[in-house]
Amino acid sequence: MKVYLAQQNYHIGNFALNKDKIISAVHHAKQSGADLIVFSELSVCGYPPLDFLEFEDFILHVESTVKDIALHSFDIGIILGAPTRNLQREGKDLFNSGLLLYNGEVQGEVHKTLLPTYDVFDEYRYFEPAFNWNVLTFKGKKIALTICEDIWNLGDNPLYRICPMDELMKQSPDLMINISASPFDYHHDEDRKEVIRLNVMKYKLPMIYCNTVGSQTEIVFDGGSLVYDRNGNLVHELNYFEEDIVVVDTATLEGPSLATSSNEKKSQHIDIDTRKIEDAEGIISRLTDINSISQIKTALVLGIKDYFTKMGFSKAILGSSGGIDSAVVLTLAVEALGSENVTAVLMPSAFSSEHSIEDAVSLSKKLGTPYHVVSIESIYDTFLDALDPLFGGTPFGVAEENIQSRSRGNILMAIANKFGFVLLNTSNKSELATGYGTLYGDMAGGISVLGDLYKVQVYALANYINRAGEIIPQHIIDKAPSAELRPGQKDSDSLPEYDVLDAVLYLYIEQQMGPSEIIAKGFDETLVRRVLKMVNSNEYKRNQFCPIIRVSSKAFGIGRRVPIVAKYLS
Amino acid sequence: MKVYLAQQNYHIGNFALNKDKIISAVHHAKQSGADLIVFSELSVCGYPPLDFLEFEDFILHVESTVKDIALHSFDIGIILGAPTRNLQREGKDLFNSGLLLYNGEVQGEVHKTLLPTYDVFDEYRYFEPAFNWNVLTFKGKKIALTICEDIWNLGDNPLYRICPMDELMKQSPDLMINISASPFDYHHDEDRKEVIRLNVMKYKLPMIYCNTVGSQTEIVFDGGSLVYDRNGNLVHELNYFEEDIVVVDTATLEGPSLATSSNEKKSQHIDIDTRKIEDAEGIISRLTDINSISQIKTALVLGIKDYFTKMGFSKAILGSSGGIDSAVVLTLAVEALGSENVTAVLMPSAFSSEHSIEDAVSLSKKLGTPYHVVSIESIYDTFLDALDPLFGGTPFGVAEENIQSRSRGNILMAIANKFGFVLLNTSNKSELATGYGTLYGDMAGGISVLGDLYKVQVYALANYINRAGEIIPQHIIDKAPSAELRPGQKDSDSLPEYDVLDAVLYLYIEQQMGPSEIIAKGFDETLVRRVLKMVNSNEYKRNQFCPIIRVSSKAFGIGRRVPIVAKYLS
Repeated sequence: MKVYLAQQNYHIGNFALNKDKIISAVHHAKQSGADLIVFSELSVCGYPPLDFLEFEDFILHVESTVKDIALHSFDIGIILGAPTRNLQREGKDLFNSGLLLYNGEVQGEVHKTLLPTYDVFDEYRYFEPAFNWNVLTFKGKKIALTICEDIWNLGDNPLYRICPMDELMKQSPDLMINISASPFDYHHDEDRKEVIRLNVMKYKLPMIYCNTVGSQTEIVFDGGSLVYDRNGNLVHELNYFEEDIVVVDTATLEGPSLATSSNEKKSQHIDIDTRKIEDAEGIISRLTDINSISQIKTALVLGIKDYFTKMGFSKAILGSSGGIDSAVVLTLAVEALGSENVTAVLMPSAFSSEHSIEDAVSLSKKLGTPYHVVSIESIYDTFLDALDPLFGGTPFGVAEENIQSRSRGNILMAIANKFGFVLLNTSNKSELATGYGTLYGDMAGGISVLGDLYKVQVYALANYINRAGEIIPQHIIDKAPSAELRPGQKDSDSLPEYDVLDAVLYLYIEQQMGPSEIIAKGFDETLVRRVLKMVNSNEYKRNQFCPIIRVSSKAFGIGRRVPIVAKYLS
Repeated sequence: MKVYLAQQNYHIGNFALNKDKIISAVHHAKQSGADLIVFSELSVCGYPPLDFLEFEDFILHVESTVKDIALHSFDIGIILGAPTRNLQREGKDLFNSGLLLYNGEVQGEVHKTLLPTYDVFDEYRYFEPAFNWNVLTFKGKKIALTICEDIWNLGDNPLYRICPMDELMKQSPDLMINISASPFDYHHDEDRKEVIRLNVMKYKLPMIYCNTVGSQTEIVFDGGSLVYDRNGNLVHELNYFEEDIVVVDTATLEGPSLATSSNEKKSQHIDIDTRKIEDAEGIISRLTDINSISQIKTALVLGIKDYFTKMGFSKAILGSSGGIDSAVVLTLAVEALGSENVTAVLMPSAFSSEHSIEDAVSLSKKLGTPYHVVSIESIYDTFLDALDPLFGGTPFGVAEENIQSRSRGNILMAIANKFGFVLLNTSNKSELATGYGTLYGDMAGGISVLGDLYKVQVYALANYINRAGEIIPQHIIDKAPSAELRPGQKDSDSLPEYDVLDAVLYLYIEQQMGPSEIIAKGFDETLVRRVLKMVNSNEYKRNQFCPIIRVSSKAFGIGRRVPIVAKYLS
């Protein structure tokens, strides 16, 4: 049986576009002589559709789209993902389903059993878990079709009390197919391969694994679909971060099973997330690992590109301060959108150093982006004049700093509103974590490019961008970071050095350690408590922040839900 | 057996405060001769703790707090709510539990079975559902202890495939106790009574129902704990929107069961949410129903008060435009915080009408709030000057309107930053739904007071505030609403009349109807499609909005999760 694996990039709720993509691939698959074509999880509507699923109108659209696609299934089987109705009286109204279309109709339907409801996932919000299991029979082959998380319940501390593949094995399947919407983070691709290999070794069946690709608001799906033969050999690995296809003959995957070695048996019981026990020393070097940074760069470029394409915009604007964050964002945006489509705005004040403007201008010239200089000096002075009856006699402080930052935000948004641009935000994860940013000022924007990168990662990314020659002026990378909102200001006046800060933040945010665990790693107690307090007392700021392109296992945004009004470590 | 029911207001993560509250009530209960005291769901840590639950450090705090409280249980049984560990290998690591403390230790533990994971609830994100059920025996009584949602699985379309009370009935309990964190919306109290009465009628047991009270960021818990005898008579109903207690002797609740009438049998099968089938005509009158508006007012005042108290702030600031929204917010804030703690800032521009300032001044004088006038004229002009090289020759448009709004936001935030105030947002639900507001401008603020009230409800609330005499100047209520960002502007230039708009929005947002269903109610097709498109294409704005005090069954915020990058009805 020839199987065509279609790794595609969908647009949530855009049924016309998704249908066209699917049908077009079906035609190609027919031309290539495939018996069966496989699409990813919820391919019909895009993943994650979130509360759109609660609208009957949305489900009707799904159903009519599936019907239209089924009309193309006379010479080929089509496996795709769609929400379907739970016809039983009890339980949630929908299932997250895999459908087999053939001869113009739905010939088989399986439901997802394990519904990820953690981090960025909310599936139990919408779906009833499967409570019975059947293989799909197609052209004499018994297919164990599962959906994403269904094959992830391995390891010493399984998240679920049931294992759908164990149930399906009772019907002696010939082949496993898993349709997924499995997001990228900078270690997840290795986890994914290991999990799939462990399934292959456990069940001694070939696996065709179809992942989606593309960025959906904050979540980047990285593709990298996989085909394993029954002996655990990786036969195909599709491209990452772009659409791709492969045609595979299942006969080539079904060689005689090799004996299970004791090593393989054991490996089913290792905790795949062994990174949790890592020592503090390795943190910074892991965060700045060149392989991770290279993947992150590709993910961010895709994240920017898909945000613009799917929102229907083509032109970006950003504040170019001469600092490293805006320099990196500008560079990535140019790669994603083209230099003519990214406008840099330089907004000096009396507190800006001379080199800031020079550096920003030299970067824009190098990249070929249009740039404008709009001074905020007179605007800032006018604000101070207007507020003098209230502020007169008070010392310069955070209020005055924020006026500058918010005046810049106002200018950027005004230009964006005038010309139909989208403002790219340039905040990094270290700033967002500690609240070192101005709400409605430098925290403004439609999408955050670096909000899931600690400052040490921004430096590593800048160096990576310059790996084959200077693109970002070296002076931007070398100088001490500063918000330049008061004379001679440095980040290090308010924050610990980034090498220490970022390690503490990583242990707290990604590894969810408490103060005593972090202190036990050798960090100074006062510093740790101060940093954690900064993180927890700035939840109200992050709550109003724009979506962040997610590249880590724990990004700020929908994957991290912390009470705003609370008193814990704050 | 004497049971002391303690309806309390907790602070999430503030273990010291919650423990003191609980222990103090335990002492009172002992003095009143109670055998047992009952606290609400997750009382130890506050509800909802969200991702704090993922921190081992947080769970350790829970456990040591429970231990400390147990030291006070030598003469009295204590039922309280806390997360506990799932000691089995499989499943999520925690349960949402009810604990019986007695003689200094945990003597009984039950786990929540039905985990609400919809709207504002995320419980399956954290908890494993119970998979076995036992009554708790205390002083010879068999208590069927359930947790909130556990008793809600009634009706024709039950959300869950299991019913924990059915399981507990196998052990012949004497009494039902339910500990809850059940939020307010302006019809939910009636649902709640009906659900509890249906349980009492179905199981023929008395019910002691302990709800929490207080506002937690956006969710308002309204208390109103209930005691029913076994015949379905409401014996006690605790106060709404404030802490309260009652002591009840269970002997008085256990009279002989009356025969079940056919009518009661039938009522178990009615859908408790019959409002869904309501005709369009009643919508506006339901939204502005005087009883609802009165409850909403109390909820909003509590929401403001708890936000400030629990965040550690006492003083508020807001932009007072002379319009109805800011007038209502100012009035509610004065009730919540005291007139001396609310500062009104009037920020006229060249486009402000004369009456705007007069009306705002007269309101502040009436309420006794400090107010300041800070003109934005020169600030706006300076922005236009600075942008002239880019904007010169372009017509006045949204960009220019937004500059004004964002300059006001900047002034308000500057004053808030300077003096340690919190900015109250004044946007209403109609504006937020349609995107009729300026991000970082009038959409700025720490907490939104009216963000869950349609404009027609704001009018009804203003009239309700004035019911015993003019507090809000009548002219503010009577004049046509306007943002005053261009000459002669009226809301109705950009939006349909609010009577029509709000009805369409209600059907789409609260009732989740699609376009064809709404059009079938008699609304103009072009208007319906235009309104729905406005709602869906402004998701990116609402995503950056502050928390909204929730009073409806479907508020913008954590209870409504819609993809930002999508194409559906947009």
